[in-house]
Amino acid sequence: MKTTLDCIPCFARQALQAARFATDDPQVQETVMRAVLREVAEMDMNQPPPVMAQWVHRRLRALTGSPDPYRSAKDDFNRLALELLPAMERQIALATDPLALAVRYAIAGNAMDLGPSMNVSVAQLRHSIETVLDSPFEGDVELLRRALNGAEHILYLADNTGEIVFDRLLIQQLPPGRVTVAVRGAPILNDATLEDARTAGLHELAEVIDNGSDAPGTLLSDCSDAFVTRFRAADLIIAKGQGNYETLSEVAAPLFFLLKVKCSLVGDRVGLSLGTHALVAP
Amino acid sequence: MKTTLDCIPCFARQALQAARFATDDPQVQETVMRAVLREVAEMDMNQPPPVMAQWVHRRLRALTGSPDPYRSAKDDFNRLALELLPAMERQIALATDPLALAVRYAIAGNAMDLGPSMNVSVAQLRHSIETVLDSPFEGDVELLRRALNGAEHILYLADNTGEIVFDRLLIQQLPPGRVTVAVRGAPILNDATLEDARTAGLHELAEVIDNGSDAPGTLLSDCSDAFVTRFRAADLIIAKGQGNYETLSEVAAPLFFLLKVKCSLVGDRVGLSLGTHALVAP
Repeated sequence: MKTTLDCIPCFARQALQAARFATDDPQVQETVMRAVLREVAEMDMNQPPPVMAQWVHRRLRALTGSPDPYRSAKDDFNRLALELLPAMERQIALATDPLALAVRYAIAGNAMDLGPSMNVSVAQLRHSIETVLDSPFEGDVELLRRALNGAEHILYLADNTGEIVFDRLLIQQLPPGRVTVAVRGAPILNDATLEDARTAGLHELAEVIDNGSDAPGTLLSDCSDAFVTRFRAADLIIAKGQGNYETLSEVAAPLFFLLKVKCSLVGDRVGLSLGTHALVAP
Repeated sequence: MKTTLDCIPCFARQALQAARFATDDPQVQETVMRAVLREVAEMDMNQPPPVMAQWVHRRLRALTGSPDPYRSAKDDFNRLALELLPAMERQIALATDPLALAVRYAIAGNAMDLGPSMNVSVAQLRHSIETVLDSPFEGDVELLRRALNGAEHILYLADNTGEIVFDRLLIQQLPPGRVTVAVRGAPILNDATLEDARTAGLHELAEVIDNGSDAPGTLLSDCSDAFVTRFRAADLIIAKGQGNYETLSEVAAPLFFLLKVKCSLVGDRVGLSLGTHALVAP
């Protein structure tokens, strides 16, 4: 998905939010904003939007000297999600269609995202879990169920911290021994890395790898060879979140996207309105 | 009022709206956006925000070759306001306090502004006129009434087209023969120029001058000497709209600002919430 002119004000807004999140120093914030503006002025609009977010956050980490400014927020998201986990596990144990409910929870977890907006409250998230079956959902779980039958190499591309705990519920519904979970290769925003996959207990359920990249999405050109080999070998890929959609929607691969629509341009692209919980099949 | 980091995403958003308003050519829109980003990256944040808007619109006019891209929108605003005028005149004729009601109408007219947002519908505007006395208002009209007694040289700084028709109602309540109305010196956004003052019939009520500047506010350093002389000689200045507030709030002069609060930073500055109709006295 290419970058559009509409992304530009959004880059500026997100960069300012990120700068204020990463540092209280107004001088550093201003330096970041000026650098971002210079970079966006010259950017290649054929690249997907996460390329700019990757650049912004690299610059932010360099200017603040903080290698992982979101670490404490990420811990909060994981802790919150782990608190909510047992109740969701109970609901899935009682469900007539555990896979379908696990898909819904996995998408609900995608609300824990500091990219599009910094405002995800515990109360909002708890509410979105409690009302998950009432939230607008589009997609055909049967397509996923059918694709899972016979899939030998399932690659699960995680997105955010907290959300990765919810992913546990869905991974438990996938054929054991056939799933590899991939996380980001280095800290970027509140996205999940290997540390978070371990916190979520995913290593007990599947092989966990990282993709070698610090982009908030899956830029294959920026990923490690080892990851790309796995990606190409997979016969089913479940990709979580908008960042993965923006970077992979034009890649020829057996991709199922699970995401909450948080941006109207992504919404236009998938034909769904803002806030929709979506399973986008190939 | 200085520019803040919060202004930056807003500059980008407004520039994109303006570029799309002025041309359908996506190449020109992209060129404008890249130029704006480069300019904002280097801007002097000690300048008030209208300096950047002035730059953006100059660039837009140069790149599109259109000296007045908002002319047709401006005509629409004037026409709409002239339609609404007789009903407001009747209300003022019946009012126990005509000055107070004229102040309210003059501020309600400030909703006709394509700067902060491109979305001002006829229906919204009609509604805001019909419910003007119910809309949140802050300010002490008595302070203005007292200042008007004894004021010999009253300068009225107009803001937008359409709005300038509403200003007619307030100018009719001011001491005859003592009022000079000043408009922008050249087209900028949907701001009023001499042509619009004539359309509103202001030349029948007062002397009308222009300020010699194409900034969407009153940047004294950019105004003509003739205007600045009038400004300095005035013993009462009524300044309409946020652009005039942003450029004059730190100028030592007998200023009364009449505006609708459309930006949270201006709101913080005057201590009022978004949407408030305000008379800000010296």
